[in-house]
Amino acid sequence: MESQIMSARDIEFLLHEWLDVSALTERERFREHSRETFDQLLELSEQLATQYFAPHNRESDLHEPTFDGEQVHTLPAVGRALAAFRDAGLIGAPMDESLGGAQLPQTVYNACLSWFYAANAATTSYLMLTMGNANLLAAHGTPEQIDTYVRPQVEGRWFGTMALSEPQAGSDLAGITTRAVPQADGSYRLFGRKMWISGGDQDISENIVHLVLARIPGAPAGTRGISLFVVPKFLPAADGGVGERNDVVLAGINHKMGWRGTVNTAPVFGDGAFTPGGAAGAVGYLVGTENRGLACMFHMMNEARLGIGLIATSLGYTGYLKSLAYARNRPQGRAAGDKSGPEVPIVEHPDVRRMLLAQKSYAEGALALQLYCSRLIDDQHSIDTEPERQRADRLLRVLVPIAKSWPSQWCLIGNDLAIQILGGAGYTRDYDVEQHYRDNRLNPIHEGTHGIQSMDLLGRAVVAENGAALATLVATIDATVTAARATGDAELAAHADLLAAAAERLAATTARLWGTGDPRLALANSALYLEAAGHIVLAWIWLELELAAHGKQTPFHDGKRAAARYFFRFELPATGYRFDVLDSLDRTTLDLDDACL
Amino acid sequence: MESQIMSARDIEFLLHEWLDVSALTERERFREHSRETFDQLLELSEQLATQYFAPHNRESDLHEPTFDGEQVHTLPAVGRALAAFRDAGLIGAPMDESLGGAQLPQTVYNACLSWFYAANAATTSYLMLTMGNANLLAAHGTPEQIDTYVRPQVEGRWFGTMALSEPQAGSDLAGITTRAVPQADGSYRLFGRKMWISGGDQDISENIVHLVLARIPGAPAGTRGISLFVVPKFLPAADGGVGERNDVVLAGINHKMGWRGTVNTAPVFGDGAFTPGGAAGAVGYLVGTENRGLACMFHMMNEARLGIGLIATSLGYTGYLKSLAYARNRPQGRAAGDKSGPEVPIVEHPDVRRMLLAQKSYAEGALALQLYCSRLIDDQHSIDTEPERQRADRLLRVLVPIAKSWPSQWCLIGNDLAIQILGGAGYTRDYDVEQHYRDNRLNPIHEGTHGIQSMDLLGRAVVAENGAALATLVATIDATVTAARATGDAELAAHADLLAAAAERLAATTARLWGTGDPRLALANSALYLEAAGHIVLAWIWLELELAAHGKQTPFHDGKRAAARYFFRFELPATGYRFDVLDSLDRTTLDLDDACL
Repeated sequence: MESQIMSARDIEFLLHEWLDVSALTERERFREHSRETFDQLLELSEQLATQYFAPHNRESDLHEPTFDGEQVHTLPAVGRALAAFRDAGLIGAPMDESLGGAQLPQTVYNACLSWFYAANAATTSYLMLTMGNANLLAAHGTPEQIDTYVRPQVEGRWFGTMALSEPQAGSDLAGITTRAVPQADGSYRLFGRKMWISGGDQDISENIVHLVLARIPGAPAGTRGISLFVVPKFLPAADGGVGERNDVVLAGINHKMGWRGTVNTAPVFGDGAFTPGGAAGAVGYLVGTENRGLACMFHMMNEARLGIGLIATSLGYTGYLKSLAYARNRPQGRAAGDKSGPEVPIVEHPDVRRMLLAQKSYAEGALALQLYCSRLIDDQHSIDTEPERQRADRLLRVLVPIAKSWPSQWCLIGNDLAIQILGGAGYTRDYDVEQHYRDNRLNPIHEGTHGIQSMDLLGRAVVAENGAALATLVATIDATVTAARATGDAELAAHADLLAAAAERLAATTARLWGTGDPRLALANSALYLEAAGHIVLAWIWLELELAAHGKQTPFHDGKRAAARYFFRFELPATGYRFDVLDSLDRTTLDLDDACL
Repeated sequence: MESQIMSARDIEFLLHEWLDVSALTERERFREHSRETFDQLLELSEQLATQYFAPHNRESDLHEPTFDGEQVHTLPAVGRALAAFRDAGLIGAPMDESLGGAQLPQTVYNACLSWFYAANAATTSYLMLTMGNANLLAAHGTPEQIDTYVRPQVEGRWFGTMALSEPQAGSDLAGITTRAVPQADGSYRLFGRKMWISGGDQDISENIVHLVLARIPGAPAGTRGISLFVVPKFLPAADGGVGERNDVVLAGINHKMGWRGTVNTAPVFGDGAFTPGGAAGAVGYLVGTENRGLACMFHMMNEARLGIGLIATSLGYTGYLKSLAYARNRPQGRAAGDKSGPEVPIVEHPDVRRMLLAQKSYAEGALALQLYCSRLIDDQHSIDTEPERQRADRLLRVLVPIAKSWPSQWCLIGNDLAIQILGGAGYTRDYDVEQHYRDNRLNPIHEGTHGIQSMDLLGRAVVAENGAALATLVATIDATVTAARATGDAELAAHADLLAAAAERLAATTARLWGTGDPRLALANSALYLEAAGHIVLAWIWLELELAAHGKQTPFHDGKRAAARYFFRFELPATGYRFDVLDSLDRTTLDLDDACL
């Protein structure tokens, strides 16, 4: 039976028939790898995800982590799964060999991770946080900090968190108030409350490495006065193990609609529960430069945001596969016009097919976009020639907000359609799709909401360098259009025409918005811009996939053509009215007197 | 503080400034009523919903009904709330006085019910099921059946269920297999399994009245061989109380994503757990004519489907009010272009305003549509002149699938936006909005899925009587357009032009689809038709509300204009591309070889 977690065949298609990841092994960074090592890791990922991650996905939804006032307790199955992942050497696999990594291309690694996210997003989150933490410290920490905090994370002995938000400072980090008081020995003592911190405590790893944003007294107000600190739960011992308990405790844990297997916490730093070294405050160490904490954090933003997009994608993908399997096996109703005929499986009803094609176009398109972006990250890490690096930087600049938001929005809608296909059954906890829907609902919120991503795209990405990033995207789309027309295939040419017109519209609307000279007016409906741009990028991805499938006459490749056809006919046209609203420079939200709401 | 359950002011506006429900009291059926009795009932509803229904909404989500193998147990607060509703005389209030009702207009009653649904949809569901059951029996039962089963339900002593679906027969009732074997005394013995039966057992009412679809041996296959039976949990005693236990037991209960406070069951009829009268089978009594069970059931379909629409609407409405209150009180970020200025409440950010206006336009528009349809039901029950009755019948014919589906789709999207406005907080179980989202997700499924409604609208409603129903709707829309133009107000005239064009498009696309002569092709994308028609109907409703607010210069009436403006600028344009797909007679789903999925 084919897996209902992810599709190994599709991943093979994307990596080898489309992105040609084997070519990466010709580059210095990846020269130890080969198609064989890639394929082995992918198979191993499917196996581990199936054996260790999927089986407790529901259990950890029904039995959330608990907090006894001192310590968070998780299910044994969570720890076992994470140990299996660690033992396979998968933590930190894309990192430098010098740090204990394997210099695996991010493209292959993210394809591997999709198996784990689809099988169990909550359990896999502990790994994502740990890898994000380790990557950030590897980029900005001192050699000693790297030795002390990165290695044990790559080895899977310690886990990491990102402690940014506070109760009064969520989307706007300018309002952070946690204080970091310098000590004579160069260390700091931290005092303050954080909020929404995933993995803020657990009983899985030997230690927890918190990366904490805080203000040093006298620092400038706002975002230019925020520094980054590493604050371990237990102070590191000289032998590489753990020593004294640091003053980081929990005020409590949050109870969420979904994603329940990942504990989400409200940590308190320096409230006096412990006095490490006999003094007050949580011991912390500055990472990077004073007051440059946000810059360090944003340095890792692309990877973090792509990570959320990949989770959303994986949940959308598994929901598609599960609703497809259900639709093939559930008899209900007759074929239209054949009232006395036999019952047919619901996959034969046009409206069910519409919901399946929609899901397929969202999930497979989103996965392709994720891996395309991952390939650009690999370019950033492995290409030395400046124009190519710059091209990767610029493309990522415009694609990342879309790769984060688009799957968060549309793969959630995909999960909604999966429930609809299962009907009443889909609404029960006997089937997975309702959990995917609840889990996926977090993704439009964390790592920058939909609104924040839209401001990033329209307010920064497309205007930076006089629009160089958007121009690079449009040129890249044009190249795909040209290649599609060159095939001589009528449907590819028709899709190319639609895409070319849409890309032109994107450029024109961008110019019109910024031609106003009024940023407030230009940004008033940025969410619609993000959505329209997202659909155009996905149409481009689908044309790319059609090209990769061109001339191949298998049902698998026919499926790519069918999903592309659906997307060009049913989805891309939904951009037009959004551009109309944007072009009209609508002031409805700006001019609203909110007293009338 | 204003209620965050529903808006008394808006209900007043809809009932009195728009629908003029006081005029109903001039009709024979409603002559005992007055604006005063209406207003008292609305105030009482707000009070009871606030005092008895809202407080345990979360509790009954966290602590679902349990089944001990024999009996379902519910929270005491559920029973207390239902008793308060009953004691206020609200059960069956719209029914005939001869049946214990108060002949309250359905328009006023549904406005009252919206308070209860918004406060606690799950608890209120027990009442909805009971009223649906009682109404059906009142319409189709014998005088003796009415005496025995309707009165105790109107008195709130017995509750009712609708037992239609079976494990193998959900959307398609043709596949029902439950058997009803005739007995010498004119009664029947039933044998079979049902599925998805809400309220199938509970410990609240003295008895449970199941209305069960089943086949009499020898009946024709398919939907023309289904009969309706009343099957009580306890056989009625001569004194009006309950006697012997009937053979209806539960195979189990279903555990749902939301709506957890209403028990959902899998009942078994006649499996031998009890032997009433010493014989096998569950005792049942035929309602109406043999083999005409579905017709009886569909007779109540309008009310049942409007009921679902009203629940979806109420959940969307309360989610809007709660996210609005949060947005007014949550400081985060600065005004655009004022980085060093003070923090502002998030209601000042354009993207938050967009999400609030969207919710407002969905929830207030949907409530208006619900009450408009309720007014038509009142017309059906109180008007004797044939043209007016026929107009009400025809309008309801096209409006009901929309009034069921549109709020189920868009008020759920509204709840999604409410979560988004609250951000991380909205994703926790500390706030109501995540529960509204989970609860509301049932509504596109039960009482006919979105797909089923779309087939009903495009496949039956708009083609019946040579399109008379659609023509009536278009004429009604035209009258609103004319009135809007006659005001001389520029914005009203602009909206009228947009609406007139959209209504023309609806009629043209309908003609084009059916002009194919191929029902399978015409119906291939019926879901898009339902969605486009829904948005046009809502645009018409919003123009009606603008007319009702015209010339009134209060913040409340400004709010109506703002929501209408949002709807005409941001929502109505989304119909265009759907019509384009429909007009193209797209065959993507029809021609799909599903092996390629």
